[in-house]
Amino acid sequence: MNHVLPDLALMPVIELSGVFVGALSGGLAAVRKQFDIFGILVLAWATGLGGGIMRDVLIGVTPPVGIADWRFIAVACLAGVVMYLFNPRLERARRMILVLDAGALALFCVSGTLKALELGAGAVAAVSAGIITGIGGGVLRDLLTGEVPVVLHQRQLYAVPAVVGAVLTAVLWVLGSLTLFTAGAAVVVVFGLRVAALRFRLQAPGPWTGVSWAHRGARRSGRMVL
Amino acid sequence: MNHVLPDLALMPVIELSGVFVGALSGGLAAVRKQFDIFGILVLAWATGLGGGIMRDVLIGVTPPVGIADWRFIAVACLAGVVMYLFNPRLERARRMILVLDAGALALFCVSGTLKALELGAGAVAAVSAGIITGIGGGVLRDLLTGEVPVVLHQRQLYAVPAVVGAVLTAVLWVLGSLTLFTAGAAVVVVFGLRVAALRFRLQAPGPWTGVSWAHRGARRSGRMVL
Amino acid sequence: MNHVLPDLALMPVIELSGVFVGALSGGLAAVRKQFDIFGILVLAWATGLGGGIMRDVLIGVTPPVGIADWRFIAVACLAGVVMYLFNPRLERARRMILVLDAGALALFCVSGTLKALELGAGAVAAVSAGIITGIGGGVLRDLLTGEVPVVLHQRQLYAVPAVVGAVLTAVLWVLGSLTLFTAGAAVVVVFGLRVAALRFRLQAPGPWTGVSWAHRGARRSGRMVL
Repeated sequence: MNHVLPDLALMPVIELSGVFVGALSGGLAAVRKQFDIFGILVLAWATGLGGGIMRDVLIGVTPPVGIADWRFIAVACLAGVVMYLFNPRLERARRMILVLDAGALALFCVSGTLKALELGAGAVAAVSAGIITGIGGGVLRDLLTGEVPVVLHQRQLYAVPAVVGAVLTAVLWVLGSLTLFTAGAAVVVVFGLRVAALRFRLQAPGPWTGVSWAHRGARRSGRMVL
Repeated sequence: MNHVLPDLALMPVIELSGVFVGALSGGLAAVRKQFDIFGILVLAWATGLGGGIMRDVLIGVTPPVGIADWRFIAVACLAGVVMYLFNPRLERARRMILVLDAGALALFCVSGTLKALELGAGAVAAVSAGIITGIGGGVLRDLLTGEVPVVLHQRQLYAVPAVVGAVLTAVLWVLGSLTLFTAGAAVVVVFGLRVAALRFRLQAPGPWTGVSWAHRGARRSGRMVL
Repeated sequence: MNHVLPDLALMPVIELSGVFVGALSGGLAAVRKQFDIFGILVLAWATGLGGGIMRDVLIGVTPPVGIADWRFIAVACLAGVVMYLFNPRLERARRMILVLDAGALALFCVSGTLKALELGAGAVAAVSAGIITGIGGGVLRDLLTGEVPVVLHQRQLYAVPAVVGAVLTAVLWVLGSLTLFTAGAAVVVVFGLRVAALRFRLQAPGPWTGVSWAHRGARRSGRMVL
């Protein structure tokens, strides 16, 4: 358990980057729903900080940094303002939101696992906390915009990179090999897995219904989502 | 307050049974929505463990067993896998999901109240925690699949058995009569109430609008839900 | 930090008033959705107490008063029963729900900020907690009834009064000027801002898409919401 993360001062930078790209994806979803500027800010806040707030509540860190640290709130709101001012044309949004989401997923599931481990949570709880940090913001974004969470029905693998990233971080920690470099490598692995799944349309198998019309229907709706 | 529960070692068995049947109902809902295997696992986890996680967060037990105890997570995922492999033909699902849900409701509202009492919560908080444990997973399942929670619009009584089970457990505790036998009886009472409500179509009264078309519309949508 | 709130005994009265009007708005939404009496009670409870429960969980007060204090639960249920028995004709509901919501917003964001400050939260966390207390119940109401939260897409300003109220309360606290009178004035300011926004259709700007049909569509859907 001799973790050797050399430069914890860089930790907030990693976390704030995750908040920023997560909040961008929230702001973009809000723009697409034609929310007003304040709705955009609220959704950017919820998407960028929601996963971390869930993590902190679950591991007993209150108040969570997502409501107590002005830097986190300012970064999330900044992302909302950026998306408000420079939102791309709507037809480009669908792809961009997925890539931003992949970046936030990667940064969050590694940093979330790490934070839980540092606070003394067991390995199982830390992996769970990391996964929830990674997917929580996106789930909140989708619920608040009236969508079924993308993590659930997205046939392009979404949960797998999160699980891989959280487990990888926990294993590195237990082995005492968690440095800024290996943590960064874990982030890259998660992001790469997710983007590869999007790019090559890697699909997780659907339920074994054996009902042909149902399969066809599912594939059709899947295509509409992406 | 001299509780005489003889065999607390059996407590996890009761809880794990609730997790398993709750997670089955979540997995089934995911199958019906044509989620992929990972969506099924996530929804099984959320449905089976969501109520308990809410309870633990509300009574200050962090990290909740639902994210920290690998047995609970494994049982929920096992239920997801079972539902993935052996999901019944879709037309049978509607009734089965309701009965599974009744079982989880019964097990959860009794064990949730009991856990809160054991941890020193007051009777009111324990009853609330028990009700939330009972209905929380199903609410989460419905929100995550884009449905209005069944506990709210379900005219076949749903909240009543949960309240009865939680109050009964708290009363037995205060009377010092809570044994494995009486706890089991409380579970049976809740399950029986819920199944009877489903079987005999016991209906809670709707709002007193006096608008005849509204009543008819409500009854019609109620029929569609079941 | 020398707060001079003279009569903290009145604090519960302010909070209970907020719970009552918040729960009325929840009960009304449930009536409009033709939920049964128990669905109405659950939604009244969730709307009236949801914001405060979120606040308590976020600032580490467990169990939250919303599940532990029978007076709060009784007041929320009473509001549900009142709405069940005396629900106005449905066509009047849309306006009334908005005014009730404004009252709850005002009471909650001031009392929520105050409670967090009293418990030692920093100013940023207290402002966040106050905003969440103010908008949390309404968000929960909208999610549970399958609507996109009104705080997000409501072009008539909603988040602004909450932010103003929470910041005002925190500033008064830091200045040592927070008395029952100034707290009441803050409540009036928030309520007035919100009602003025509704009355005069003050609109926050939507995203800068430059796509004319999108703007028109948004305005049209906004009109439908109100």
